[in-house]
Amino acid sequence: MLLDGINKAFESKARLGIMSVLMVNESADFSTLKSLLSLTDGNLASHTRALEELGYIQCEKRFIGRKPNTTFVATEAGSKAFSAHLQALEDFLNGVKKP
Amino acid sequence: MLLDGINKAFESKARLGIMSVLMVNESADFSTLKSLLSLTDGNLASHTRALEELGYIQCEKRFIGRKPNTTFVATEAGSKAFSAHLQALEDFLNGVKKP
Repeated sequence: MLLDGINKAFESKARLGIMSVLMVNESADFSTLKSLLSLTDGNLASHTRALEELGYIQCEKRFIGRKPNTTFVATEAGSKAFSAHLQALEDFLNGVKKP
Repeated sequence: MLLDGINKAFESKARLGIMSVLMVNESADFSTLKSLLSLTDGNLASHTRALEELGYIQCEKRFIGRKPNTTFVATEAGSKAFSAHLQALEDFLNGVKKP
């Protein structure tokens, strides 16, 4: 089946979105991701935690003035895995279109 | 964001697989889907039930001799929704490749 390369870690719309943003931008902070992807705090936090545990993104917490700020970057492993996933999706789509 | 058209109902690899098989074939029975998609009975049953509840597939139960046989077909609504999802995935991929 053509689904072999599809990575469960990136299945959901939210995770596709998070990784896409972090591939195109050096980094993105929590509130930027939240508004770009229209996610709730809890939802975004659970997806970023999962991606962090998989080693696909890194999270930096710091303070800007008195406000806590959390920034995310894609790791090299994350970029590679996500590229492979996108390629797998593309192969799958090509396979479905030309059965 | 380019993720708007992505349909949560088809997010998982299993559901992408089930719908793809049912788009390409008139119908498929439980054991065919199971072996094509390398899913367990429980896993496949929970995905087919969810897709049936959404009105995207229909399930026919009958007996072949003494053996129960369950066959699935994609509904018109399912075919349309899945095509729209594939288009959304394609748009998303094109957007990610050319930021």
